Amino acid sequence: MSVSSEDREPQVGIVMGSNSDWPVMKAAAETLNEFGVTFEADVVSAHRMAAEMIDYGTQAHTRGLRVLIAGAGGAAHLPGMLASVTPLPVIGVPVPLAHFDGLDSLLSIVQMPAGVPVATVSVGGARNAGLLAVRTLASGTDTQAAALRDKLQTFQADLAAQAHAKGEALRSEAAQLGTFRTRSGRLT
Amino acid sequence: MSVSSEDREPQVGIVMGSNSDWPVMKAAAETLNEFGVTFEADVVSAHRMAAEMIDYGTQAHTRGLRVLIAGAGGAAHLPGMLASVTPLPVIGVPVPLAHFDGLDSLLSIVQMPAGVPVATVSVGGARNAGLLAVRTLASGTDTQAAALRDKLQTFQADLAAQAHAKGEALRSEAAQLGTFRTRSGRLT
Amino acid sequence: MSVSSEDREPQVGIVMGSNSDWPVMKAAAETLNEFGVTFEADVVSAHRMAAEMIDYGTQAHTRGLRVLIAGAGGAAHLPGMLASVTPLPVIGVPVPLAHFDGLDSLLSIVQMPAGVPVATVSVGGARNAGLLAVRTLASGTDTQAAALRDKLQTFQADLAAQAHAKGEALRSEAAQLGTFRTRSGRLT
Amino acid sequence: MSVSSEDREPQVGIVMGSNSDWPVMKAAAETLNEFGVTFEADVVSAHRMAAEMIDYGTQAHTRGLRVLIAGAGGAAHLPGMLASVTPLPVIGVPVPLAHFDGLDSLLSIVQMPAGVPVATVSVGGARNAGLLAVRTLASGTDTQAAALRDKLQTFQADLAAQAHAKGEALRSEAAQLGTFRTRSGRLT
Amino acid sequence: MSVSSEDREPQVGIVMGSNSDWPVMKAAAETLNEFGVTFEADVVSAHRMAAEMIDYGTQAHTRGLRVLIAGAGGAAHLPGMLASVTPLPVIGVPVPLAHFDGLDSLLSIVQMPAGVPVATVSVGGARNAGLLAVRTLASGTDTQAAALRDKLQTFQADLAAQAHAKGEALRSEAAQLGTFRTRSGRLT
Amino acid sequence: MSVSSEDREPQVGIVMGSNSDWPVMKAAAETLNEFGVTFEADVVSAHRMAAEMIDYGTQAHTRGLRVLIAGAGGAAHLPGMLASVTPLPVIGVPVPLAHFDGLDSLLSIVQMPAGVPVATVSVGGARNAGLLAVRTLASGTDTQAAALRDKLQTFQADLAAQAHAKGEALRSEAAQLGTFRTRSGRLT
Amino acid sequence: MSVSSEDREPQVGIVMGSNSDWPVMKAAAETLNEFGVTFEADVVSAHRMAAEMIDYGTQAHTRGLRVLIAGAGGAAHLPGMLASVTPLPVIGVPVPLAHFDGLDSLLSIVQMPAGVPVATVSVGGARNAGLLAVRTLASGTDTQAAALRDKLQTFQADLAAQAHAKGEALRSEAAQLGTFRTRSGRLT
Amino acid sequence: MSVSSEDREPQVGIVMGSNSDWPVMKAAAETLNEFGVTFEADVVSAHRMAAEMIDYGTQAHTRGLRVLIAGAGGAAHLPGMLASVTPLPVIGVPVPLAHFDGLDSLLSIVQMPAGVPVATVSVGGARNAGLLAVRTLASGTDTQAAALRDKLQTFQADLAAQAHAKGEALRSEAAQLGTFRTRSGRLT
Repeated sequence: MSVSSEDREPQVGIVMGSNSDWPVMKAAAETLNEFGVTFEADVVSAHRMAAEMIDYGTQAHTRGLRVLIAGAGGAAHLPGMLASVTPLPVIGVPVPLAHFDGLDSLLSIVQMPAGVPVATVSVGGARNAGLLAVRTLASGTDTQAAALRDKLQTFQADLAAQAHAKGEALRSEAAQLGTFRTRSGRLT
Repeated sequence: MSVSSEDREPQVGIVMGSNSDWPVMKAAAETLNEFGVTFEADVVSAHRMAAEMIDYGTQAHTRGLRVLIAGAGGAAHLPGMLASVTPLPVIGVPVPLAHFDGLDSLLSIVQMPAGVPVATVSVGGARNAGLLAVRTLASGTDTQAAALRDKLQTFQADLAAQAHAKGEALRSEAAQLGTFRTRSGRLT
Repeated sequence: MSVSSEDREPQVGIVMGSNSDWPVMKAAAETLNEFGVTFEADVVSAHRMAAEMIDYGTQAHTRGLRVLIAGAGGAAHLPGMLASVTPLPVIGVPVPLAHFDGLDSLLSIVQMPAGVPVATVSVGGARNAGLLAVRTLASGTDTQAAALRDKLQTFQADLAAQAHAKGEALRSEAAQLGTFRTRSGRLT
Repeated sequence: MSVSSEDREPQVGIVMGSNSDWPVMKAAAETLNEFGVTFEADVVSAHRMAAEMIDYGTQAHTRGLRVLIAGAGGAAHLPGMLASVTPLPVIGVPVPLAHFDGLDSLLSIVQMPAGVPVATVSVGGARNAGLLAVRTLASGTDTQAAALRDKLQTFQADLAAQAHAKGEALRSEAAQLGTFRTRSGRLT
Repeated sequence: MSVSSEDREPQVGIVMGSNSDWPVMKAAAETLNEFGVTFEADVVSAHRMAAEMIDYGTQAHTRGLRVLIAGAGGAAHLPGMLASVTPLPVIGVPVPLAHFDGLDSLLSIVQMPAGVPVATVSVGGARNAGLLAVRTLASGTDTQAAALRDKLQTFQADLAAQAHAKGEALRSEAAQLGTFRTRSGRLT
Repeated sequence: MSVSSEDREPQVGIVMGSNSDWPVMKAAAETLNEFGVTFEADVVSAHRMAAEMIDYGTQAHTRGLRVLIAGAGGAAHLPGMLASVTPLPVIGVPVPLAHFDGLDSLLSIVQMPAGVPVATVSVGGARNAGLLAVRTLASGTDTQAAALRDKLQTFQADLAAQAHAKGEALRSEAAQLGTFRTRSGRLT
Repeated sequence: MSVSSEDREPQVGIVMGSNSDWPVMKAAAETLNEFGVTFEADVVSAHRMAAEMIDYGTQAHTRGLRVLIAGAGGAAHLPGMLASVTPLPVIGVPVPLAHFDGLDSLLSIVQMPAGVPVATVSVGGARNAGLLAVRTLASGTDTQAAALRDKLQTFQADLAAQAHAKGEALRSEAAQLGTFRTRSGRLT
Repeated sequence: MSVSSEDREPQVGIVMGSNSDWPVMKAAAETLNEFGVTFEADVVSAHRMAAEMIDYGTQAHTRGLRVLIAGAGGAAHLPGMLASVTPLPVIGVPVPLAHFDGLDSLLSIVQMPAGVPVATVSVGGARNAGLLAVRTLASGTDTQAAALRDKLQTFQADLAAQAHAKGEALRSEAAQLGTFRTRSGRLT
């Protein structure tokens, strides 16, 4: 697959049961966008359009998709059902609904039977779903993968830099207390 | 039972321990109304009028009711108690109260001993309770059943149509991100 | 549907993801047998034969089935997926697996979204699933329904009789303690 | 009520849904026996003989019973239902069943609505149920109450004495380790 | 104990770890007041004045108290500690704190070891704690007990009456839906 | 990376905190073996050799590994710590320990903060971890990926075939009940 | 270590993954300040700067720190990772995040494997973490320890005094109810 | 305190409610023994000898004890009650009992109110309790502390060595699978 094909066609499919999940799930899309990874996004409902959902899963890899991200809440069947009909890695995002704070969503997604894996992230963890999709593409052997690995390492270095900046802010706040002492052996 | 009888007499009984449960439970009534199924609704409290509650359950089928829907929260005894004295299918709706988010309600309703089934739906799931009552009536062998089966299939087709519309809305939102790509092989 | 047709064709479909669920699920079949209700039983796996599972659900009512009973464990998708494609009432049995004692199975089955009801029974509650199927058939307007209602009331009377017998046994055991007194106002 | 009446008639009613609960519940009876408190014991099933159960609760105080102890498991309705029809204190014992280790039993018993109290003890805590019944009788103003208060204080002193004896046993075991030291300031 | 003594001295002790628990616990006091039962109320903290708490428990029955009600949250030790040093019945109220919605409070109160019972009510169930104290006093053999039993039955009749009124309100609301039918066989 | 390199060097690293995890984790290795994917396996303990664990994670992709599988139980830190220092996809397997049945392991692995994804599978789900690693490699653009996709689809077809065989076995067992009927419209 | 050294150098290190944890964690710092114990505070993220975090833990005792306090939420790895590389006592504070109310944080911190202890306090319990650090320093054999023990006992006496004051406030509120009685045998 | 005093008098008090807790708790004693730390061990029951328990806590530091370890199960009050009357650090070990697998024990110990810290370890984590006591003593400024810090670092190095040995064993087992590859860049 050439770079231009990567650019033309979506590599990741982000699906969910309703557009009401979008406020949670858009973090996955934003993350892919941040890493320059093309994606499609759509409502594919396990419970409202089951046959079409099966078709979506069955055809995903033939349409060139390489990773699926599925968000679902409550009796969250979408990620597992897609995983059962595609050879692609499926990332499941437990969406918290009005009750149980996502525990039902988490268990319904993660407790899949042997044979049908779903890569589950934290409750509401759509950003990590996006990052996991990037890592998956970055684990490849092509030039895009190498470029994404570099971007991921830059991303991780940025996280560290942000943590350092937060440390500076925290030390300023803590310094208002009389027995605060500067951490010895570091420049502040 | 003729159609006109169906229209005169309630076929489904919706009961709950207090009218404070109505905001949750009215979705069951609205659903029956939507499908043209007659119902009665009342406060029948397991804990405040136990003997009357037993009478309600015992007489339900002799009064022509064909399905009972009971909502209850906390130590939710109403659905199970009714189920123990009626031969009718009883649908239990776990109503969430101030603590535990409906987990106590759910377990108190669903964990019935062998011999006394309660058809339990999700926490707060009164709409599904209504739909389950409709499906129960639709499983019959009479003309009303056949008509309800048709309505249920129309209802399911509508759900799919709504999901498609939501997909279109979602794609519009997602299209604001630069690496969004239209799902190949479909008209948008 | 004539009585002879009732006898020829299965009225209830009992399905599960694997024959390893049979030790739990056979109680549903035995209950139907006890009430003289015909049934089919089969492995229909949501995760191992998804498209076929969808077909099973979609065609169930056209094949004359009137109630579905589906057992599943862990990320238990079968009952909900069937419910999404059939107008029939679907009864879900949470099967406990090696971990979490059926809590994951219960939540994955009962927490269905509005629009797609599953009549959930207790963890491992296959006998109650069978009884709920009988009650569903008994809620009809035909002669079989009337007969089943009678049988259900006999069944309930038998439960009471068994409880009385158990009470006698219990009182015998308790009578070994010196301060045990016979319940006044009853014959023992 | 004279002492001889106390001796003739049961003061405490111990009930449960099945004699299969007796292995757990007999500890309540044994405790009453130990304190010389008369009791009756019976199977009173909320789900198998509901009307009779209501009668049992309604008549309990008119028959001279002063405390009820009710054991139940799963969707444990018996203690709460009895409490709703009697003015007597009802003590509920959550019996653990095959799944959820008594959590369902506990929540179904303890989470009663305002107006209908159940005095709940620990999962499987029938001995404490018996002791609570004794304490209830001991809170009275009659001579039996005074005698029971004395017995309870002797009982508590015995618990302390047993704990001291257990301490001696424990110290013997611990003394096998080289850095064990005798607790200073006490005779051993 | 004469009636006038009952009136002069507190019969029930209501204690809690802080006056911040009062908004929850005052329902117990209001209930006792409603039934004309005298009580004292105080802060008795297991964790902030342990020795004094032990003294409170040890002396409670010698001071004429007949029932203790203790509210506590989180690692809720007060009810159990009091129960260990008094022969009186101790009623524990699990107070919900900032996290875990009272589950920690409930388990810390209800899961007492054999020998030391605490009569546990629902999370935040102070009204039921008050009612349980009334029922305990009403289980006695004196004239106050008889009077309280009467009041409790009036109270229960009032609950039923209120439920009937709520039923009327509910039926009015439900009647706005077209397929609502009046419950046959009752006057509305 | 040529096929021969694939064959010489491990592509997947399977690590765990102790060889006592091997009975659970070996299913991951067996799965990779089944698909012909090379792997290394080792004890890398977050809590017993932290600096070395960080080195393992940091160097994994430079040594040619493409996916990491980490099993851990209790306060299960290994998967998340590795994920924080590698750009590779990390698959976490919650290993159940003596208490809490793997719930602590699951939450400690799946609830990662935004920025550091772990692809979590079910409690004890090492086989699915192996399959997820295969799917990850199969999502690539090279010839190995294409071959693995084919194998995965064969694997999925085999699962379906096994399910059909299990169905046949189940139907034989169910046929011992008198009201069993053969599923119409299928060859048995 | 002389008193002046105690004053110059931090004795306690308070660390957390982000300054967003400061609103919870500052209670630990304020407590140390209240007891005159010097501390440093910083962002040390297990997941964003793992190698640096390891260095922080490894060097803590060589820099003169005597206790570490680490706050973390979700898959909370910081306390346990630090504990694995330092000989110092590490106090873990489970910080509640958006979901699960701190249960994940608690289990991820407290369920450490044998060999690597973390002294865990309650969810959000940073004040107790500070007090536990003070108690740890107070358990020493030096003059600072003796002084801190005195301060701790004064602190505990203050808690009792505050509880007494709260009792007075509570009694004033309760006195508005007619059956309130002053606690006999105490001055109010 | 001189070294000989350290050797004569117990430095750590290990207490529990019954000698039935010894099989769990002895790991704490064995660990102290392993590090050459003197200890006393005894039954001190919060619920069976409350006043004595308060005395034990109040006097602990005056008798020369420097750390307390308390094990308890169910409504586990001992660690928290001791912590409320001593200025010493108290380490709590949640002992799992017949139900709830230690969750009740854990919450009853860890969820202490602000002001009264308990250093909680994992369910059944007596070995870590012993190690935490050692770390506490090792955080001091005396020569024993320095010696214990050295021992702790040796202990940690031993853990790493054991992990390496376990790795070798694991690699031997894994090598039976055909696609196993030796980890490049290390000697095996």
